[in-house]
Parts: sequence; structure tokens; C-alpha cells
Amino acid sequence: MTTLRPVIPYAKEQSMPIIQCDIREGRTPEQKQALARELTRVVHETIGAPIEYIYVLIRETPGSHHVKGGVALPPYAPPEEIQR
Amino acid sequence: MTTLRPVIPYAKEQSMPIIQCDIREGRTPEQKQALARELTRVVHETIGAPIEYIYVLIRETPGSHHVKGGVALPPYAPPEEIQR
Amino acid sequence: MTTLRPVIPYAKEQSMPIIQCDIREGRTPEQKQALARELTRVVHETIGAPIEYIYVLIRETPGSHHVKGGVALPPYAPPEEIQR
Amino acid sequence: MTTLRPVIPYAKEQSMPIIQCDIREGRTPEQKQALARELTRVVHETIGAPIEYIYVLIRETPGSHHVKGGVALPPYAPPEEIQR
Amino acid sequence: MTTLRPVIPYAKEQSMPIIQCDIREGRTPEQKQALARELTRVVHETIGAPIEYIYVLIRETPGSHHVKGGVALPPYAPPEEIQR
Amino acid sequence: MTTLRPVIPYAKEQSMPIIQCDIREGRTPEQKQALARELTRVVHETIGAPIEYIYVLIRETPGSHHVKGGVALPPYAPPEEIQR
Repeated sequence: MTTLRPVIPYAKEQSMPIIQCDIREGRTPEQKQALARELTRVVHETIGAPIEYIYVLIRETPGSHHVKGGVALPPYAPPEEIQR
Repeated sequence: MTTLRPVIPYAKEQSMPIIQCDIREGRTPEQKQALARELTRVVHETIGAPIEYIYVLIRETPGSHHVKGGVALPPYAPPEEIQR
Repeated sequence: MTTLRPVIPYAKEQSMPIIQCDIREGRTPEQKQALARELTRVVHETIGAPIEYIYVLIRETPGSHHVKGGVALPPYAPPEEIQR
Repeated sequence: MTTLRPVIPYAKEQSMPIIQCDIREGRTPEQKQALARELTRVVHETIGAPIEYIYVLIRETPGSHHVKGGVALPPYAPPEEIQR
Repeated sequence: MTTLRPVIPYAKEQSMPIIQCDIREGRTPEQKQALARELTRVVHETIGAPIEYIYVLIRETPGSHHVKGGVALPPYAPPEEIQR
Repeated sequence: MTTLRPVIPYAKEQSMPIIQCDIREGRTPEQKQALARELTRVVHETIGAPIEYIYVLIRETPGSHHVKGGVALPPYAPPEEIQR
């Protein structure tokens, strides 16, 4: 895993952005690591917070607990036909 | 402002990731727009959620309400010596 | 304003459901009162929590802080052509 | 399960209310579905948000993690003597 | 377990502070009880809320979901060399 | 203001507890500072997190947005008859 390299060299001042993600259970550990790392990176790049002070928290809940328009989502299932 | 283009063409299934950001007041509207747009983009790219279903919420509070290690942060002030 | 009358007479046991609403600024005080009262009522009726222990918290943020699919919402404006 | 029918026909504008519920583990899937569907309905009816854009998220935690007045709640147990 | 005794005898008015803690899984039930009880006590003592109305909610997530500076924390392991 | 002194000398490992407080507007800056400092202290003392990594966030909302048992709280008013 690549370490994040700060792109804003003088952003040393204190900061504490808190980013909370509520997603369905089912993503792989690699996906969740990438999610958190990339969220951290863009917070740093867009609002200048020092990387070391950015907190990202991921909470997972069953698909049935995510209700959109009054209808619960199904459990997350990795798509088969997506090419990367 | 660029529209986000999905990079995962088959990710059409229902989803509802919720990303909540608690930051200090003081960033410009442009910074906050960029923050939210970039958070959306990386959620889509790392966990495959369709862009249209990703909710990002930004909450701002005074610097004095962000307390790290028992000490309140100062108000956010845009840094002068940062070059982009 | 009508007081909520419990419909589940034996639901006296301890409980503490917490319902947090993040909405755009702009609704009237009456709308927000109705929202919170009705949320309380349905929590009581669907999961049996005693009314007195149900906490509802409303947080308002500018429309620009609510970002759906990478695009910020406009400020909330009460619709003119809606008939109730 | 009944589909929610919008009562406000012109509420088509963009919206994204987020309703987060923190409750104790132990309710049945049917209770949680009813909770989320009814929360969605009252949000629509009281503040006019289009049903399709309302997000409800349910998070469950053990009773011991819900602490009211300094005292933890017991695990949720369905009441026996309640008549509906 | 000691019952909390209010130190502010006239603080009888309605209140509803909500304190939410997101921590890693792994602390003992006794630690979490102490955490919640002490959080309640200091809320009462510093801002005068009546003890009975203070809600503390503890949510636990895996260490890998707590990402600080772009790097996930390890699972929580009780330290061996700490003396109390 | 007293600096917090860690009481657990070996608790140097990484940690990131996040404590979020939702309270009514109206407390003084001194009360809110004390609240956050004391919350930090008890998190450190009860679960052993290093002080420097503990994040406390205070969000304030109008009294009318805090709804207990279906009834909104009044605005916070400092009590007159409380002796400290």
C-alpha cells in the first residue's frame, strides 16, 4: 500500500476533520482500505488539512438497514460483470 | 465545474453510501464543493457505488468546537504561504 | 399542538432511541416541530419505545452542504404549487 | 409490504434528508422495516421531501452501549404483555 | 457500581445532551461502563445537564475501520505493561 | 487552563476515539471548553487512549431542534439559583 504523500507542504497547522462513512457490509478489506485512504487524500488536497490529523471512520451495517425511498437495499453483492 | 463521469459502467444497482464530514468553518465555497465532489468520486471508484446515490454532507462548526487532545483548535485561517 | 398519546400501554421499560435528522435550512418552525413529533410517534408505534425516552435531533445545514451525486443542492425554497 | 404513495404530488425537486436511527439490537426485521418505512413517510409528509431521495439508516448496538443517566440499558427483550 | 450523585441540585430543567462515542472493539464491558458513566458525570458537572437526561451511546467498529492519517489502526489489544 | 496530564504512562499506541456531543446553543465558551477537556480526560482514564489522539467535537443546535418525547426543549438559559 502506498503511503500518502502530502501535496501541500506548508499545511502543518492543527486540524481535525472527521469523515464518517456509513456503508453496507460486504466490501473487501482491500476496498475499504482504499476507500479510507482515498477519502483522506482528497480531504488533504481539497481543504488543506494535514494528512496526519484526518480521521476516517467506516461503519458497516446490513443492507436491510439502508433504506432508500422507503425500501431496504439488498445485501451488498460484488458485481461480476464489472471490468477494471 | 466538471460533471463526474462514472468509471464503473455496470454499477447500476441500488446503493446509499452516506459520507458525513465535520470540519471547521472557514473554507471557501469552492473548497467545499471540491471536497464533496472528490469524496463522491473516490467512493464511486473504490467501492463501486453509483455516483447518483452517494450522499455527502458537510457540517461546519467553530474551531473552538473541534478539540484535539483536550485543546481547542483555533478558527480556521487560510494559509498564506501555500502555493498550488 | 396535540400531545402524543401512547398506543402501546405496557411499553414502560427503559429505552433510548436516538433519531438524528440532517436536513437543509429553510423549513418553517411548524414543519420542523411536526417532523420531530411525527418521527417520535412512528418510532413508538413501530418498535414500541416509550414516547418519553425517544430523542429526536434536527440539524440544519445550508443547501450547498448537501451534495447528492457530486452536485450540491440549491437552498431550500418552499414550493408554491403544492396543495395540501 | 405497501409501497409508499407520495401525498405531495409536486415535490419533485432535489432533496436529501438523512435520518439516522441508533437503537438497541433485538427488534425483528419486520419492526425495523416498518420503522424505516414510516420514518420515510413522515419525513415526506411533514417537510415535503420526495420519497425517493429520503435516506434512512438504522444502526443497532448492544443494550449495554445505550447508557441513559449513567446506567446501561438491558438487552432489548420483546414485551409479552403488549396487545396490538 | 456507584450511582452517580448529582452535584448541581437545581439542575432540574429539561435537557437532552447526546454523546456519541466511536471506538475500536476490544475494551472490556467494565471499561465501557466506566467510560459511559464518567462521560455522563462530566457532562453533568461542566454544562449542568440533569444526569437522568444525558444519553451516551457507544459504537464499536473493527480497528481496520478507524483510519488515522490514511493508515488503519490495528485491532485494539489491552496493554500489558500499564499499571493502574 | 490546565493542560491534561496523562495518567497512563505507557498508553502510546495509536488510537482514534471520536466523541461527538450534540447540545443546545447557549453555554458559555468556558463551559464548552471544560466539557471537551473533561470528556477527553475521562476517555483517556477509562479506556486508555492517549490524550493526543482523542477527538471531541461539539455541535450546537437551537433548543427547538432538541425534541424529547415529542416535545421541543426551550432555548437553553443559564440557571440563576445554582450554586457552585
